[in-house]
Amino acid sequence: MLSLHLLLLLLLSSCLCTYSNTSDKAVDTLLRLLPEEEGLSSGDLGDDPNEAYCESWRLSVETNNAGNWKKISARCSSLVEAYVRGAQYALDSKVVARFAQAYAKNIQIAGDGMDAWIFDVDETLISNIHHYFVHEIRWKKVTNESGREQWAASTKSPALPWSLWLYKKLQGMGFQLILLTGRKETHRNSTEQNLLAVGYHSWEKLILRGNLDSGKRAMAYKSEKRAELVAQGYRIHGSSGDQWSDLMGEPMAKRSFKVPNPMYHIP
Amino acid sequence: MLSLHLLLLLLLSSCLCTYSNTSDKAVDTLLRLLPEEEGLSSGDLGDDPNEAYCESWRLSVETNNAGNWKKISARCSSLVEAYVRGAQYALDSKVVARFAQAYAKNIQIAGDGMDAWIFDVDETLISNIHHYFVHEIRWKKVTNESGREQWAASTKSPALPWSLWLYKKLQGMGFQLILLTGRKETHRNSTEQNLLAVGYHSWEKLILRGNLDSGKRAMAYKSEKRAELVAQGYRIHGSSGDQWSDLMGEPMAKRSFKVPNPMYHIP
Repeated sequence: MLSLHLLLLLLLSSCLCTYSNTSDKAVDTLLRLLPEEEGLSSGDLGDDPNEAYCESWRLSVETNNAGNWKKISARCSSLVEAYVRGAQYALDSKVVARFAQAYAKNIQIAGDGMDAWIFDVDETLISNIHHYFVHEIRWKKVTNESGREQWAASTKSPALPWSLWLYKKLQGMGFQLILLTGRKETHRNSTEQNLLAVGYHSWEKLILRGNLDSGKRAMAYKSEKRAELVAQGYRIHGSSGDQWSDLMGEPMAKRSFKVPNPMYHIP
Repeated sequence: MLSLHLLLLLLLSSCLCTYSNTSDKAVDTLLRLLPEEEGLSSGDLGDDPNEAYCESWRLSVETNNAGNWKKISARCSSLVEAYVRGAQYALDSKVVARFAQAYAKNIQIAGDGMDAWIFDVDETLISNIHHYFVHEIRWKKVTNESGREQWAASTKSPALPWSLWLYKKLQGMGFQLILLTGRKETHRNSTEQNLLAVGYHSWEKLILRGNLDSGKRAMAYKSEKRAELVAQGYRIHGSSGDQWSDLMGEPMAKRSFKVPNPMYHIP
């Protein structure tokens, strides 16, 4: 199966090479794609090939250019599913983990137990792909939280392998690992069970939403929790999350690592 | 030529579809790519197919996961060139511009001339691809500034069409457009000449590095300038830049738009 993957990737790369070399003048290519100023409707992206458009859409999601998007672009739905079920998602996750590890290796650990790294849980440490696609909990249920309630109560979400790899590497280096999730305190037991079952051990803290955090936007809630950690003396060297709301907001970690997630957006 | 592009994109998309459907279990695919824990060297990424790896590398650059990277990964050099000379770079730029426009359309313009949008110049408003690739000014000269000096003195860099499109749209909506560049004050004339020649007109301000800004890191310099603008009463609704150092640092614009640039990094 792996060799079939490789063969198809080679085929793909030969397509791309043939494709890329057809034009020698970048600006010509750019100009060819320039819209005619008149008669252009603002939402009109319909004339671009699907595959290429969806790659651009996914890049916009990952770079936070898409802002507060509500659902996967209709034309990209099956391509997004193919992506997260395929090798590119795994490789994208691997490269993020490697960059995080390379950064972490250069940090001097003080040895006072206050050198911290924060991980989000869903789509960062563990994968809810099976809930999301197989059990048909799509964007609507994710954004209104009933889908997320369901998978927070489950204990069967598998680890994202490259996050587990990074987690263990950081632990070996002496970082305190702090798990900061939007899941509610009522799901502490199921969350712990799930994490332990798939290989995560010995975290420093697992922070869930308490009653007082109810109704707060993810970015505000997570920023407050980071501020509390800093007040407790933790030095937050890194933060890994699949949502920009895991990473942004003061105080930020010294370095943030955006794990891919083109399935849903949490503001 | 365009139809050849389309044909190749269709071929590419059919490759990808075939490829993505070969596995029905995402977790299986992820696990297959898990490293053996022992005997894994930290920088070892050598066993992934080039095309797929370079896509992941580029995503890491665009999401700022790569941090302060010095040069294009050696195995990705020709693929990065193919990307910026090809249709995907143009389409990625188009989708960013569209998201920016969609956001801007919902902003209430006060009419007091203080609703602002910031643009970076190099690789945001105008393209230095020809300097970068044709005249062989590669990463080394870019990072030590001699390359950037050379293209700042030139007046022949073409507009990036989708940035020009966005620029005009924003202007039509009543935004004040502020150009904030790392270029030096000594290049004001050449920069203005170049911008005017390729279609940019009627900006509110063109801010270049003065003597006092010499030696400051881009992020610090640009944050200071945004602070000055805020102190002058500007409401910075949006900021478009190809570098994270164009966008990050307090005060930030309400929304930031990362324009693609896998060629070089400015910290």
